[in-house]
Amino acid sequence: ARTVRAEVARLDKAGHKHFMSKEIAEQPRAIAAVLDAYLGESGAALALPAALDVARAERVLLVACGTAYYACLTAKYWLEQIAGIPAEVDIASEFRYREPPVAPGTLAVFVSQSGETADTLAALRYVQGRAAQIVSVTNVEESSIAREADLDLQIHAGPEIGVASTKAFTAQLSVLLLMALRAAEARGALDAAALADRLSALRTLPALVTAALETDGPLKSAAAEVAEARDVLFLGRGVMFPLALEGALKLKEISYIHAEAYASGELKHGPIALVDNTVPVVVMAPRDALFDKTVSNMQEVMARGGEVLLITDAAGAEAAGETVWRRIVLPTADPMLTPILYAVPAQLLAYHTAVAKGTDVDQPRNLAKSVTVE
Amino acid sequence: ARTVRAEVARLDKAGHKHFMSKEIAEQPRAIAAVLDAYLGESGAALALPAALDVARAERVLLVACGTAYYACLTAKYWLEQIAGIPAEVDIASEFRYREPPVAPGTLAVFVSQSGETADTLAALRYVQGRAAQIVSVTNVEESSIAREADLDLQIHAGPEIGVASTKAFTAQLSVLLLMALRAAEARGALDAAALADRLSALRTLPALVTAALETDGPLKSAAAEVAEARDVLFLGRGVMFPLALEGALKLKEISYIHAEAYASGELKHGPIALVDNTVPVVVMAPRDALFDKTVSNMQEVMARGGEVLLITDAAGAEAAGETVWRRIVLPTADPMLTPILYAVPAQLLAYHTAVAKGTDVDQPRNLAKSVTVE
Repeated sequence: ARTVRAEVARLDKAGHKHFMSKEIAEQPRAIAAVLDAYLGESGAALALPAALDVARAERVLLVACGTAYYACLTAKYWLEQIAGIPAEVDIASEFRYREPPVAPGTLAVFVSQSGETADTLAALRYVQGRAAQIVSVTNVEESSIAREADLDLQIHAGPEIGVASTKAFTAQLSVLLLMALRAAEARGALDAAALADRLSALRTLPALVTAALETDGPLKSAAAEVAEARDVLFLGRGVMFPLALEGALKLKEISYIHAEAYASGELKHGPIALVDNTVPVVVMAPRDALFDKTVSNMQEVMARGGEVLLITDAAGAEAAGETVWRRIVLPTADPMLTPILYAVPAQLLAYHTAVAKGTDVDQPRNLAKSVTVE
Repeated sequence: ARTVRAEVARLDKAGHKHFMSKEIAEQPRAIAAVLDAYLGESGAALALPAALDVARAERVLLVACGTAYYACLTAKYWLEQIAGIPAEVDIASEFRYREPPVAPGTLAVFVSQSGETADTLAALRYVQGRAAQIVSVTNVEESSIAREADLDLQIHAGPEIGVASTKAFTAQLSVLLLMALRAAEARGALDAAALADRLSALRTLPALVTAALETDGPLKSAAAEVAEARDVLFLGRGVMFPLALEGALKLKEISYIHAEAYASGELKHGPIALVDNTVPVVVMAPRDALFDKTVSNMQEVMARGGEVLLITDAAGAEAAGETVWRRIVLPTADPMLTPILYAVPAQLLAYHTAVAKGTDVDQPRNLAKSVTVE
């Protein structure tokens, strides 16, 4: 792990035109670093710190801002579905001022790349003395949030220079997934054989992410047209909904296109009024139990002239058929891994769209890397 | 109450150009009908059905779609802050497929104007046998959702013809506020004197909403310029965040302008990259404990060329100063009532913008009044 971290720490662009592009490409290594750090020597067992008390937690509360908030929304699905533990997620700036009741037995998790996000730090301080345990997930060991938490889990992503977070997001997701698996193990929701299966799937993640990076060409081609749009919708169901939110945020941040995400099922409750042939719709949907619902949403969009860019797997691409405007095909993967995998094309689409528009990719207007003021 | 309901049931436009405008104007009477129904003879005591078991509920779960979902998000604040009971909210289409753990002792609330929303009905069926009690909040007594709930609370709004919900939203909010007050009473979070104060404030609501309707002129004038925008941001903190979401949805539904809402504290985590002099920013903020934070968010927007339309009260307008593009001034009100009050200018802004654009206000493209399919 030491070698990997030293290597990603080099601050030049390593042949890339932008830090963001370099950081997108570094994700297989960043995720491997997470697995190295938390899977123990053999890679066959979870090795999160023993102090992480997920066995007795009655619920998990996750709080963050921006991209890290979307990582938390994803973790809610994992914690509930893999470990069977109720999870709640809140925006730090909302949580800290609402000052809600914190049930005893709450494991509180705060996620921040810099570890200095002002609202997240204030939210952490609010739960001190109220939560059973406070865990931080950061990229900076000496940061305020890491120091004030009872326990800090490093994401080992190395320095992230691009203002739009990429490798920190997938590294945060990887750590949160490991936490959900640890909770499932500790609570008996997964027996030893089932856990071994999950870990074995998890070890394929760096290779899957490497394969996902091969969507670069088709996404660059689609981005040339997306760059002409002023508005874009992103749709996803279930665990893909937070990914749609992250895809929309990424595009908004660096290309200044007004991208917005909706849970697919909400489309008919308002946003479909926006859809015409000027608003591309990005649909993130592996072929899973919800896929047929998503196809029906896509058909509604297409019936109104909307162009669909479908990010899916081979089975999904086949089922969706040729009438979809663009199909981006990712490797087929364990459903547990798809949120991490589908982050990659969302990042690449935003990146290439911004490059096509000629915006300042690494330093988008109005934004700072770490929001250390309120 | 019978007379009021018979009167609002007349299906002509009563001199209004659109049903939506008529239904916006009917809100003082619709809210009065809710108070009539649930405040008992004297208006001085809560008279919700005795079967509503808020005393023993350990948590409240609220599930809905679209505008009704935003009513639920608002109710979460009331339930937590007035009654001290933890509340969770979910989108029906997400909830039903995620199939999350439902803690015993959960009071589950389903909100739907028509009572036929397919995803909401499916979500209700999922919690049958899991939740301690199932309550529906609908506008149609004979609807599927009302019939399948353990207890139905009618919103007494009368028929709503405009596809974009207006009076049903504020009537839903009024019922949910009464439910929060009943929970506070049953759990001892409010003593008799405090409750009497709250009810006395509540009885002023129809008059306050009548006064809020007087912002029609200034909003019509602002709408003439908002109609030129392709994108609009809405910002709100705390209990104003769901109202910002509803304001953005309303504008999107009927004017086809791409309006999106953010919690004000999230502005710096991405969406501010969108802000320039082509994107008006609607800020919903009465002068409360969070107002200074909001002023600071407005200054960031204005520093980047963004035009701010501030919806506030007299004290807020004065504190914000003359540099704000437009100030819409509502009556000063008990903070508990502001979500209901601030819905009115959000509706009027959407209405006048749509009229200025010449869209089909009552039958916006692509939308149906009740989403009875998935």
